[in-house]
Amino acid sequence: MLTYNFERNSGVPLYEQLYGAVKSDILNGIIKSDEKLPSKRELAAHLGISKVTVEAAYAALIDEGYVYSIEKKGYFCEKNLALPGKKSTPVSAASFSADEFKVDLSSNAVPKNQFPFSIWSRLTREVMLNYSRELLDPIPYKGMYAFREALCSYLLSSRGMRVSPENIIIGAGSEYLYTQIIRLLGTDKVYGIENPSYHKISEVYSMNNADIRYFDITDHSETVSEIERSDIDIIHISPSHNFPTGRVMGAKIRHDLLSLIGDRRNGYIIEDDFDSELRFEGRPIPPMQTIDNSGRVIYINTFSKTISPSMRIGYMILPPDLAAKYSRELSFNSCTVPSFEQYTLAEFISRGYYERHINRTKKYYRILRAELLEEFARSPLPKRSEISESQAGLHFTLLLDTEMPDAKLKEMLAAEGIKASFMSDYVYGSDSHGHELLVNYSGLDREKFRLALDTVCKLLG
Amino acid sequence: MLTYNFERNSGVPLYEQLYGAVKSDILNGIIKSDEKLPSKRELAAHLGISKVTVEAAYAALIDEGYVYSIEKKGYFCEKNLALPGKKSTPVSAASFSADEFKVDLSSNAVPKNQFPFSIWSRLTREVMLNYSRELLDPIPYKGMYAFREALCSYLLSSRGMRVSPENIIIGAGSEYLYTQIIRLLGTDKVYGIENPSYHKISEVYSMNNADIRYFDITDHSETVSEIERSDIDIIHISPSHNFPTGRVMGAKIRHDLLSLIGDRRNGYIIEDDFDSELRFEGRPIPPMQTIDNSGRVIYINTFSKTISPSMRIGYMILPPDLAAKYSRELSFNSCTVPSFEQYTLAEFISRGYYERHINRTKKYYRILRAELLEEFARSPLPKRSEISESQAGLHFTLLLDTEMPDAKLKEMLAAEGIKASFMSDYVYGSDSHGHELLVNYSGLDREKFRLALDTVCKLLG
Repeated sequence: MLTYNFERNSGVPLYEQLYGAVKSDILNGIIKSDEKLPSKRELAAHLGISKVTVEAAYAALIDEGYVYSIEKKGYFCEKNLALPGKKSTPVSAASFSADEFKVDLSSNAVPKNQFPFSIWSRLTREVMLNYSRELLDPIPYKGMYAFREALCSYLLSSRGMRVSPENIIIGAGSEYLYTQIIRLLGTDKVYGIENPSYHKISEVYSMNNADIRYFDITDHSETVSEIERSDIDIIHISPSHNFPTGRVMGAKIRHDLLSLIGDRRNGYIIEDDFDSELRFEGRPIPPMQTIDNSGRVIYINTFSKTISPSMRIGYMILPPDLAAKYSRELSFNSCTVPSFEQYTLAEFISRGYYERHINRTKKYYRILRAELLEEFARSPLPKRSEISESQAGLHFTLLLDTEMPDAKLKEMLAAEGIKASFMSDYVYGSDSHGHELLVNYSGLDREKFRLALDTVCKLLG
Repeated sequence: MLTYNFERNSGVPLYEQLYGAVKSDILNGIIKSDEKLPSKRELAAHLGISKVTVEAAYAALIDEGYVYSIEKKGYFCEKNLALPGKKSTPVSAASFSADEFKVDLSSNAVPKNQFPFSIWSRLTREVMLNYSRELLDPIPYKGMYAFREALCSYLLSSRGMRVSPENIIIGAGSEYLYTQIIRLLGTDKVYGIENPSYHKISEVYSMNNADIRYFDITDHSETVSEIERSDIDIIHISPSHNFPTGRVMGAKIRHDLLSLIGDRRNGYIIEDDFDSELRFEGRPIPPMQTIDNSGRVIYINTFSKTISPSMRIGYMILPPDLAAKYSRELSFNSCTVPSFEQYTLAEFISRGYYERHINRTKKYYRILRAELLEEFARSPLPKRSEISESQAGLHFTLLLDTEMPDAKLKEMLAAEGIKASFMSDYVYGSDSHGHELLVNYSGLDREKFRLALDTVCKLLG
């Protein structure tokens, strides 16, 4: 049976040591695909540790996709996880999951060791002491007023946005809020989505039976005339930083779009500002929400990039008439975010911790970006590629000089333990973009990036 | 300006004292409808307290509907809140909000002082220490495995349900989960909803453009033949305790429905088990999920009744083929519940605190129910009404012997400071029920209930 030694006084919890040991055996091919693991009770007895510890380790291994369970049968090692060179059976590129890759260029992770857990922990205790009655009450449908008020102060001081708490709706992440917007505006309208753009946007619109058109954003001046010729009522855009092109809409195009959409009877702009706080160079352009005088901009943002994707708190700012319509038609929808999280985040924001955390995170990313750009400059890749849109947000793109199809290159990279995505993965319809490799760098470090660059060079030949 | 004295060492936070003082002035008509309140800065300076304290008090007053704010203008007293007898202007019945009523017979509140905040607080600290890395990762779309596993153990030991974590989907409350079910099963199916039933059920189905039929549940044997004659594919029922009738479906009707629906090509039963843990008398009937051998029951439950409506954690158990369909079609939907809450609740459940909390809560409700039934027996009301379905869940009904229309009685009760709802509020189409007053007793006490009974008697004449 599996036998490991634990360091009792290492500060690392036992379950985590066990988790790490089993994971390492899986990655090294010692535990094989579909091999049955010992039962929790057996392993606990064998190793002289508690069953709870084994349970916690197995749960973490299952959560991360190393192990699967079959009811009444037990626990088994997932297929094909052994790392290249260490495995006994051939591995298919698709069988890697995020954690098994040596380098993941496509991850939306946030950096570990940056979030101030001790402060958050203190705030949660205070919230439980001060709001013990309120925590047992139903939540107002727009979200807690105290949280919406804290957001308003923050948005004013950090982004120059003048917002009333009455016009803010809190919801469990952007996908939930997209759905509420479609419910509010109706499926009888035509929605325009940027091409290329993040998968989930069009997936959520399709799931809600919305009528979708895609408009190209390769050339912004073309974009305006394309929308002008179309029957689009509502456009969903990320003017401060499109994913995946990284394009930023200048002031002129913003004004043009606002006036074009403002002239349409059912016209609205959904401004999806997903990573706007994390901008590192260039003059920040104010959100379109701030130049909207006719009540046509719906602003959306979340805390997924700045705090954690596991936090599930998003907010949207509605123009006053839509806020009133929301109250009339959708107020029976309970707010989807726990009041505990809302109170804690309100304190985190209003006592200035959020701004400090963002500044620390920006500093971390600024250094990381500089290091990665240095690695890029040092590598042979500048001869074979062009880096672009590196001034904003958490990703950039590398236009590769190659004839190889993206799918082929992706497969070869995966076989080398590198997970990658390409511009072409996000393009709807025919693709006029070149071979652009996307680099989401939030989860990278210098060494991993160097390894990725070396591998790309090697494969380009 | 408003002047109050505070008790510095009372243990009641200052902001709460200020909140209570202003609220009392509003209810007593001292602060009048639409009267402007002092600015936060002014009031803080005037009372010699910090601006943060005033802010917190104003935020709470706004949250609860006593005060409204107008951007750049300030804070104002809401209209018509002064209690009857104390107000200077006539009050309309509809202008009361939950907190201003002397007695609220329709509230879904949970009892204060029952939830073990100190334990919860300790668990949150442990979760932050032990899962600091995991808390920064995205959440698996079904929810955290550790939480789903804890749920499975709990459901097995407490309700005899054999469930695999693979078949559980975690979501932010039942309305979100209803929506996911409709997305999963499709809007081309016909959904049958109990008549009468809780508003939100049909509101969510309508919002999602589902095709709805209502079926009567006054007489269960009629119910089966009514569904048999209909074109209903999927029924949404609360067999363990319908709201508002309180009816419990017996074993025979459950089997009949299961076999009837099982014979339909697209047939599914959505078993909405919203307050099943809180049953006080009679033999508990196992959930339909446990007698379903053909994979036709979708089971839904939440923690809104047992912990708090502000927690926003629900779960559904899908039959294996629907769980697979969910993975194929809807896995791009991020889980809507923060992982922090999921980890904490997992610990709360698996260490036995949840079961202990439920037992404590049941004991609390059992005593409360006995007290209320005693009050009812002592009052003159048994001569004028019949109490029914008092053996299960958190509400019962009083069939009143009166000719007065429910709407009229409701208005008269409201004018006396008593918020009430009637069976007729939940009936779709023509109403064959008598004048049934609903009593959601979770937020009541003996004195409030006595006051309500006295008032009802007085109004019945």
